[in-house]
Amino acid sequence: MSAVYGGVEGGGTHSKAVLLSATGDILAETDGPCTNHWLVGVDKCIEGINDMIQKAKISAGLDPDSPIHSLGMSLSGGEQKAAIQKLIDDMAERFPKLSKSYYITTDAIGAIATATDHGGIVVISGTGSNCKLVNPDGTQVGCGGWGHMMGDEGAAFWISHLAVKTVFDAKDNLAKPPHDITYVKKAMEEYFQVSDLMGMLPHLYRNFQKSHFAGFCRKLAEGANAGDALCRYVFTQAGKVLAQHIVAVLPKAHQELFSGELGLPILCVGSVWKSWELLKDGFTQVLSQNQAHYSHFHKYSLLTLCQSSALGGAKLGAQNAGATLPLDYSTSANVFFSNSFTNQ
Amino acid sequence: MSAVYGGVEGGGTHSKAVLLSATGDILAETDGPCTNHWLVGVDKCIEGINDMIQKAKISAGLDPDSPIHSLGMSLSGGEQKAAIQKLIDDMAERFPKLSKSYYITTDAIGAIATATDHGGIVVISGTGSNCKLVNPDGTQVGCGGWGHMMGDEGAAFWISHLAVKTVFDAKDNLAKPPHDITYVKKAMEEYFQVSDLMGMLPHLYRNFQKSHFAGFCRKLAEGANAGDALCRYVFTQAGKVLAQHIVAVLPKAHQELFSGELGLPILCVGSVWKSWELLKDGFTQVLSQNQAHYSHFHKYSLLTLCQSSALGGAKLGAQNAGATLPLDYSTSANVFFSNSFTNQ
Repeated sequence: MSAVYGGVEGGGTHSKAVLLSATGDILAETDGPCTNHWLVGVDKCIEGINDMIQKAKISAGLDPDSPIHSLGMSLSGGEQKAAIQKLIDDMAERFPKLSKSYYITTDAIGAIATATDHGGIVVISGTGSNCKLVNPDGTQVGCGGWGHMMGDEGAAFWISHLAVKTVFDAKDNLAKPPHDITYVKKAMEEYFQVSDLMGMLPHLYRNFQKSHFAGFCRKLAEGANAGDALCRYVFTQAGKVLAQHIVAVLPKAHQELFSGELGLPILCVGSVWKSWELLKDGFTQVLSQNQAHYSHFHKYSLLTLCQSSALGGAKLGAQNAGATLPLDYSTSANVFFSNSFTNQ
Repeated sequence: MSAVYGGVEGGGTHSKAVLLSATGDILAETDGPCTNHWLVGVDKCIEGINDMIQKAKISAGLDPDSPIHSLGMSLSGGEQKAAIQKLIDDMAERFPKLSKSYYITTDAIGAIATATDHGGIVVISGTGSNCKLVNPDGTQVGCGGWGHMMGDEGAAFWISHLAVKTVFDAKDNLAKPPHDITYVKKAMEEYFQVSDLMGMLPHLYRNFQKSHFAGFCRKLAEGANAGDALCRYVFTQAGKVLAQHIVAVLPKAHQELFSGELGLPILCVGSVWKSWELLKDGFTQVLSQNQAHYSHFHKYSLLTLCQSSALGGAKLGAQNAGATLPLDYSTSANVFFSNSFTNQ
């Protein structure tokens, strides 16, 4: 058969896989569970990836025993060199029929590779969060991406945690809540099926599942959309801290990145961005406050991917194996918000 | 043999066990590892407790196959009813020769039972933190004690985490550190044996051990004592938030608690209090700021236990089994700091 290229987008809750032809056409797509190896362990991670790609081969009418040319994976948690080398070694050993070559990058780099060849800033806010600046020359600067124990600010887990912590602190009289906790407390009791704070402990420790905890964020978005002040507050805080990630990498952004028609392109990845209207006030406020430090910062645009980062993963995996996969960038991302600074 | 009463003090890093005679004399003492069931799981927790008590029986010259009269356990993590019932049931089933009856309470209640029969406020800051007000009539009000995922403010884990997070945020340019990070970064690299931030990820996730992470606090205390500003800062923050726990329960404290010679008695338990001189500024500041709300709050005294909370555990366990264990309170606690408010 002619060369087939595989790509994986691995998230903290869901994953996706694609198979592409040498011309960049999609042959098959499949879905799978969380493949963040920090969350589920190496074995579950690579089994999940193998399952998705093997299913995709069958769905594309390919022989599952015949390895694809390359497999490029864009994984949340795919940053630490020693850890990703172990993933690759284990995958090659356990699943020799999967692929001839392997490449792993982060979800951030995979996302930006899906959208463009010219760089930009990507801000991920899904189960976890991460921000990466990629300059036009390929140099990278990151902020965040350290997981729920050391960051994840502005992500679904963080938003859920902030809301729950506000309830705990209010009940403990340790801190005054910024708004009434009634709605959030009730939503928490319903979502986690608990009758008191003590009942939350298994959800935080013995049976902790980050993606389930993060899923509470959806209930908070519902509350915010229905007008609950505390729900609106946690999303405003998320918008602020997500913008703060961009502010953190701005000093390293090359001037060319600001000069296109869109101004600074900011690629927004992850399900929390579906609640953009709730994030907006906090987000725009922090960027406006910091814009004055950069004379070339006149405008920014927020973009969302129309295709899975598995495509960018496939492109980078092919590149690593010496092949060039043509992607159609004109259809890969959409602008959903633009802001020009007027007070300069 | 005449009735023997057992007690356990279970912490997030170390544990202790005692056997007492009916007259309150110590027959044997033993040490063991972490027995917080949230941290090590139910099996390791109850095996650790069984080991300590069985060793103590042998050391006291007792028959290890003969159950003691009662076993009272003062456990960090011993709060949730369903979870402690499961611990007790599992212990009774797996180790029928251990004890005739079982009782579990929190580390906070065990500590105060060791010091007094008249109530007070106990503030634990060891691996984790917790605060409990016990009124003279026995009524209780708590603040904190939710573990590192939802609190532990002012504890060794929290202090270590605050210092490490300050390094991460400074390197990410996400937040400006309050003081130079050089010392803390170097101490972190040495303690955790890492060469960069990425190296910290296994310590936070795959190989996370709360007590090991919390152990970094000792290095921070060394730095603070040597004058490093960021190390001093994290302890000042810890002092503030520990005092804030007391402020949280003050509205529920009965007036009698303030009227003794010591003023409000505050029992300080856990290894972080060994660094009292580093906590002092933040701690006294927060209490002074809040004192004005309480006309009867003229003075407070900080006390430290001279004996293990395993004694209080044994007393409560005996009580639960219908026996009264006499403890000598005159030797059980020492005042190490007193403060009278003058500006009233």
